[in-house]
Amino acid sequence: MLKIEEYRQIIDEQIQMLGGMKRPEGLYDPVRYILSLGGKRLRPVLCLASASLFGEYSAALMPALGIEVFHNFTLLHDDIMDQSDVRRNHPTVHKKWDNNTAILSGDAMLIKAYELISKSPVGVLPQVLEVFNKTAIEVCEGQQFDMEFEKTSDVTEEGYLDMIRLKTAVLIGGSMKIGGILGGGSLRDCALLYKFGLDIGMAFQLQDDWLDVFGDQETFGKKIGSDILNNKKTFLLISALNRLEKASKKELLHWINRKEYEAHEKINAVTRLFQEAGVSEVLIQKRDDYFTRSLENLGKINGDHEMKQEIENFVHKLMARSR
Amino acid sequence: MLKIEEYRQIIDEQIQMLGGMKRPEGLYDPVRYILSLGGKRLRPVLCLASASLFGEYSAALMPALGIEVFHNFTLLHDDIMDQSDVRRNHPTVHKKWDNNTAILSGDAMLIKAYELISKSPVGVLPQVLEVFNKTAIEVCEGQQFDMEFEKTSDVTEEGYLDMIRLKTAVLIGGSMKIGGILGGGSLRDCALLYKFGLDIGMAFQLQDDWLDVFGDQETFGKKIGSDILNNKKTFLLISALNRLEKASKKELLHWINRKEYEAHEKINAVTRLFQEAGVSEVLIQKRDDYFTRSLENLGKINGDHEMKQEIENFVHKLMARSR
Repeated sequence: MLKIEEYRQIIDEQIQMLGGMKRPEGLYDPVRYILSLGGKRLRPVLCLASASLFGEYSAALMPALGIEVFHNFTLLHDDIMDQSDVRRNHPTVHKKWDNNTAILSGDAMLIKAYELISKSPVGVLPQVLEVFNKTAIEVCEGQQFDMEFEKTSDVTEEGYLDMIRLKTAVLIGGSMKIGGILGGGSLRDCALLYKFGLDIGMAFQLQDDWLDVFGDQETFGKKIGSDILNNKKTFLLISALNRLEKASKKELLHWINRKEYEAHEKINAVTRLFQEAGVSEVLIQKRDDYFTRSLENLGKINGDHEMKQEIENFVHKLMARSR
Repeated sequence: MLKIEEYRQIIDEQIQMLGGMKRPEGLYDPVRYILSLGGKRLRPVLCLASASLFGEYSAALMPALGIEVFHNFTLLHDDIMDQSDVRRNHPTVHKKWDNNTAILSGDAMLIKAYELISKSPVGVLPQVLEVFNKTAIEVCEGQQFDMEFEKTSDVTEEGYLDMIRLKTAVLIGGSMKIGGILGGGSLRDCALLYKFGLDIGMAFQLQDDWLDVFGDQETFGKKIGSDILNNKKTFLLISALNRLEKASKKELLHWINRKEYEAHEKINAVTRLFQEAGVSEVLIQKRDDYFTRSLENLGKINGDHEMKQEIENFVHKLMARSR
């Protein structure tokens, strides 16, 4: 079996074992629930893979779990703030329970994440905490920018890219740097891992934006056009608003503000305006720039060659989803 | 000047300096706001005092600030959950801004707290984190029990005492133990500091419950009887519900369930029922037991004699508020 596959299984098993938390059940049931909803376990898997570029993955196991718990904490609290009803085809915690439960169980998860991070070997604990603290606060900053962007029509492409860097990319970069530190990688290699993770995170998010409009429903798994129906400020929408000439921009704003419409009509009209603005090409160019640069940095790392190849194949596969 | 007074000033100055956090302002303005509302700074002051029982307080400064930031994070999120409009005579964060802001700024404060805790000298960092992680999760458990208690009429005195132990007392115990560790205290002395803080925290909370009903408005600062008007499950109410005979218990429940009433009438009636049940005496007995035991443990600590005396005078003064 590929090592990355194995890491995924190990993470899933360990997540199950975290479930042993006790009373009050009202606090811990929602924690078990959201952690059991699955997901790709992308961040802890990349953390373990990064560690094993230089040494044993085992020193990174608890911190990798901490990163996954942290990631799920952000999903839990973001879902309250965004009033999302569904997460991974299941009701969100604040829907299944209530807002107060979701707030407090999320808080408990953030503390639990730190508890797991704290199990890093003491020799590297300060470095691991430094990366994690910085990353965690940046993820909050990213969520704040995201919420602010939803309330304004005045977002630039650069502003959007900076938001997704904070909200999404830094945690992937941080996961890999923490893995590298725990595996015993050099400063230089850990910095390269961070850059790799940051760029690959940017590429993944841009790809997600693109798939929502231009993806293939069968393979994408999510409904095509849901970002359009939700007026979500993706790279495509922001870029189109900045690039369309006056009449077309007015038409796009008209669709955004319209209260009653047929779903497929809105999706078709907005998609056509995206095509007119040429924003698919702009996105693809940026996405591929990030992806290419990430692989260049991966190539520069002095680590186990086979593991590097596995990581490269793994991110290639993730990028290729239904393109 | 007394050292404890000096610590309070140092903490206030340092809290001001934390205000240098940058964009997004929407995330950090509420953090600065709640931290500027003041308060006794009880936990960080006791943390510094505990450190200086054995050594310099300076090693404990950043972690002490972290504990104060953590405490304010719990207030911020609790105020959302309890739908409280006022905190220290000012609008709460979720009132002044909104729920989403209060959730996310609270999350950022919890991370900021860990950032400050992480500045502990590396030699004791794992021990400090262990105490802090355990304490932080217990505070969440306490808040969960508190919320559950508000929804049931079936709470025992023991259940209530366990709830306030988790919600309030462990953080005072934890603050002192962390201070002791950072000051270089022995295992035995740090354990005694924890016990002292735990018991003094229990005594403070019971005293708060008592003052709300039997305190002197001038010196207490808060309106007398507000817990009664809010049907708050304090020790007095829980104890009365468990101790009153049938007819009087029915009368008490009647006042709890009544929707329309004159405030002073309800306060007088419930206070009379508390007196009938003898719960003031029960509370005072328990409070004094905790207080006496805390001082016994303080006495057993091998630390600077003057500092011990200052701590003893300090907690005496806090207990004596308007008795």
